[in-house]
Amino acid sequence: MPIATRAFAAVAADKPLEPYSFDRRDPGPDDVAIDVHFCGVCHSDLHVATNDLGNTRYPIVPGHEVAGVVSAVGANVTRFKVGDRVGVGCMVDSCRVCEPCKMGEEQYCVPGMTQTYGSPDPKGAPVNQTITQGGYSDHITVDQAYVLSIPDSIPLEAAAPLLCAGITTYSPLKEWKIGPGSKVAVVGLGGLGHMAVKQAAALGAEVTVLSTSDRKKADAERMGAKHFLINSDKAAMQAAGETFDLIINTVSATHEIASHIQLLARDGTMVMLGLTTEGLPVYALPLLWRRRRIAGSLIGGIRETQEMLDFCAEHGIASDVEVIAPSEINTAYERMGRSDVRYRFVLDMARL
Amino acid sequence: MPIATRAFAAVAADKPLEPYSFDRRDPGPDDVAIDVHFCGVCHSDLHVATNDLGNTRYPIVPGHEVAGVVSAVGANVTRFKVGDRVGVGCMVDSCRVCEPCKMGEEQYCVPGMTQTYGSPDPKGAPVNQTITQGGYSDHITVDQAYVLSIPDSIPLEAAAPLLCAGITTYSPLKEWKIGPGSKVAVVGLGGLGHMAVKQAAALGAEVTVLSTSDRKKADAERMGAKHFLINSDKAAMQAAGETFDLIINTVSATHEIASHIQLLARDGTMVMLGLTTEGLPVYALPLLWRRRRIAGSLIGGIRETQEMLDFCAEHGIASDVEVIAPSEINTAYERMGRSDVRYRFVLDMARL
Repeated sequence: MPIATRAFAAVAADKPLEPYSFDRRDPGPDDVAIDVHFCGVCHSDLHVATNDLGNTRYPIVPGHEVAGVVSAVGANVTRFKVGDRVGVGCMVDSCRVCEPCKMGEEQYCVPGMTQTYGSPDPKGAPVNQTITQGGYSDHITVDQAYVLSIPDSIPLEAAAPLLCAGITTYSPLKEWKIGPGSKVAVVGLGGLGHMAVKQAAALGAEVTVLSTSDRKKADAERMGAKHFLINSDKAAMQAAGETFDLIINTVSATHEIASHIQLLARDGTMVMLGLTTEGLPVYALPLLWRRRRIAGSLIGGIRETQEMLDFCAEHGIASDVEVIAPSEINTAYERMGRSDVRYRFVLDMARL
Repeated sequence: MPIATRAFAAVAADKPLEPYSFDRRDPGPDDVAIDVHFCGVCHSDLHVATNDLGNTRYPIVPGHEVAGVVSAVGANVTRFKVGDRVGVGCMVDSCRVCEPCKMGEEQYCVPGMTQTYGSPDPKGAPVNQTITQGGYSDHITVDQAYVLSIPDSIPLEAAAPLLCAGITTYSPLKEWKIGPGSKVAVVGLGGLGHMAVKQAAALGAEVTVLSTSDRKKADAERMGAKHFLINSDKAAMQAAGETFDLIINTVSATHEIASHIQLLARDGTMVMLGLTTEGLPVYALPLLWRRRRIAGSLIGGIRETQEMLDFCAEHGIASDVEVIAPSEINTAYERMGRSDVRYRFVLDMARL
């Protein structure tokens, strides 16, 4: 029997999100049905709700930082049982046969992963769903292969943002082999940035936070940063030149990156994680001069996401969250737009 | 006794190069004195002659693709003897004690390499030279540690461009581990591009040339390219999407790079080798979506330059050159400015 689901949905680009009801599919043989307890609020949700990328289909239920408890499982499900604490991140399926899928990097699936919300939903027919709907909802049904196990030591509300923000920062830290002796800079101390600081410090790196003001300096140090730089302070920026092996750039607004490139050591990389939509001017000379690199990185695969959750549990890492009622989502978007959040809004679905 | 040297020098940004005479130092204990037979003409020479980077000190003798024969050696010189065929590239000294120098990557010397022309010359005092002067000259004196051995099978005039163009393309092919199975694109078939095609093909890669027209298609295929793409052909560019492990971008004029990024496979890198001076807009989404990278690369170290010369000899690779008299340098600059050269001008110093 379909699962009656209550949610908050965007119904048009210029309207506030509003209560919305729809049916989730009953779990099939490989499915896990989940009672959603908490869902993190990601900047991408805002992009989609307001149709910034131009491809949103309404109504859309955002949310891909889902934490909850298993309520039912299909006949083939071996990895989870009713009552387990579980999470769902940015994807709920992928082709499973392309090279990236076989390598466990389903986020780079060649035909394209099935995103948690807004993708065509190949399994939605029984409940008349043509696109996937996300975690701003009290139930979700997901194939077990795309469900994560949340370690007992992490509270569900603080685990939710790990499913997107946490893996988005962890994956490049691993890809660029950060460890003891590494020097890492994090640009922007927000939802992504605060995870990057905690994880890089736990990996043994010496961490510097770059921000536009010193408002968050004490927070940065509490999270594990050794140094704090204000990126408009030209003298300090100059003194920090040629220092960093990796810069994790979490800024999703249009911003100046040329002066940040100068901070990279020889062979250093700046990884862009934010979805800036305008072109950012890049200059050849500073790249040539020290064989520097600029890269992008997109969340992480399912296996790596589980590794990240276990790593966070082992090191006492979770997201710093501000728990709100789903009805406060529109205010939250507005505050997020001006970076007024420390450090992630999380919807408490019990208050739906 | 100082070595009376004849040369061509730039005397001002807005004047043609003209004949110029000066003294080279007599070889010290570690020096090799070289009779310059040929000197390649690099786009950087033009940048410096016309003061494009704003730091040129006149008069300046350009030229850092030097091929010649040893005429004298100092008492400590063990690696070379009179009559040896030798080359000098973009640098004639470096600090020798910093980490990159100790690793054999002197081009990234922390205090900065001594470039073949235009750098402060710490050894120039005996002959009243305050800056280094390059290879558009009939003699040069260089410390043996920065002199390369030119294999017998490569004619000196075709070896000269290997000392800058050849190492500039070889170094990133090695850094990004190109070999059999790699798919490499080369953007721009000029002095750098034609070396990249030959070397990448010799390394076993499947090579595609991207150019603005099909004028050079037959040349590209003769050099080892399997495919040829006109980068204004949107359908062909679309069909080639997500293909290349490495794009060697040799274009030094301002150009559009966003559509080229789309050609990169997952984890692929576009290496910028050209000294574009304006910022090139880079978009985050195509980088994120396939964890793509943009990088710079600067010539190569002395050890790697020797490796490249030996590799080229082994694979029958040399530069395609147009040999001219030094007095034709101003015409050559003008033709180079409109890419009218196949594929490198080389000054014949015997015609000085």
